[in-house]
Amino acid sequence: MSRGSIQIYTNIAHDYLVKLKVLVMETLEAIKTRRSIRKFKKEPISRDMVKELLEAAMFAPSAGNEQPWQFIVLDDRKILDIVPNICSTAAMCRQATTAVLVCGDAGLEKYPEFWVQDCSAAVENLLLAAHAMGLGAVWAGIYPLKDRVEGFRKLFSLSDDITPFALVPLGYSDQETNPQKRYKEERVHYNGW
Amino acid sequence: MSRGSIQIYTNIAHDYLVKLKVLVMETLEAIKTRRSIRKFKKEPISRDMVKELLEAAMFAPSAGNEQPWQFIVLDDRKILDIVPNICSTAAMCRQATTAVLVCGDAGLEKYPEFWVQDCSAAVENLLLAAHAMGLGAVWAGIYPLKDRVEGFRKLFSLSDDITPFALVPLGYSDQETNPQKRYKEERVHYNGW
Repeated sequence: MSRGSIQIYTNIAHDYLVKLKVLVMETLEAIKTRRSIRKFKKEPISRDMVKELLEAAMFAPSAGNEQPWQFIVLDDRKILDIVPNICSTAAMCRQATTAVLVCGDAGLEKYPEFWVQDCSAAVENLLLAAHAMGLGAVWAGIYPLKDRVEGFRKLFSLSDDITPFALVPLGYSDQETNPQKRYKEERVHYNGW
Repeated sequence: MSRGSIQIYTNIAHDYLVKLKVLVMETLEAIKTRRSIRKFKKEPISRDMVKELLEAAMFAPSAGNEQPWQFIVLDDRKILDIVPNICSTAAMCRQATTAVLVCGDAGLEKYPEFWVQDCSAAVENLLLAAHAMGLGAVWAGIYPLKDRVEGFRKLFSLSDDITPFALVPLGYSDQETNPQKRYKEERVHYNGW
């Protein structure tokens, strides 16, 4: 069996372990060990796995439960290769096999100014779910940078209601990470400043 | 032993189970079963538990890792009783024994317009961590509602750099929740709209 075939079988096995809930990660561990992953293996992740990730994203809280989000999944090589021209911090899309474009939908808003917070919570859920499922992902900011917003709007002929918000390239990680300490006592105040 | 004492011992046992990593929750389960909790038992949670929650919040991703956040922990009854006068959707602070005010700090920003997204990811981490640790919590929006922002700024004499962003009342849940379905196929698009 070639190295490529072995990798494909490994990935299929990986997906089954996720589905069977054998490959799992405890929540606090996931939160504390998640890191931005910018290098991915060339084997694609399945659309089943993508669906799991999007379900996690859609479980995010939102203002008045408005859920003002839309998701464009990019797994077409031609489109992924165009992305870095619009969003320079998403250069890894030339290697990544999948990316999720999270968009705000003004037509779904009940509390208009809160859509950014809602979509941010959805992105964070997506990142944590990916990590817990043994995948890597990174949050590339789009909104409120006008060039990026308009670039994606033009690429997909999006209506004015739809605002490209963040891009999440993802896949099987090809990057080592180190444990971090992030807690800063000086950022915590009790009952006043 | 009185019912109150039994509850206190139960809570101490609960805290130890969290610390010993016996009381844990799988990440995807936490994401899918987390709900807004607005009713809390009267027994306070320990500051050790609050520290765990804030550590989770501080592990959120942020633009260029700027971490532009500050946290004011409210566990003084007099202050908690004032909160609903500023933020009507946080009326449960009259019963809650703890709430965390998440603030943006302009003095820490490298990418000024991204602080809302960074703080939102921190709030989502806090909510998921609380749920995984067997606690309940709710996201009460403050920013960008001017009355709420200015109300909290005045209450704590905050400098212009500090923007009250969201309030998270939390504690031992006194509320039942039902499983939800949130995945919406129609929100997912592939390689275009």
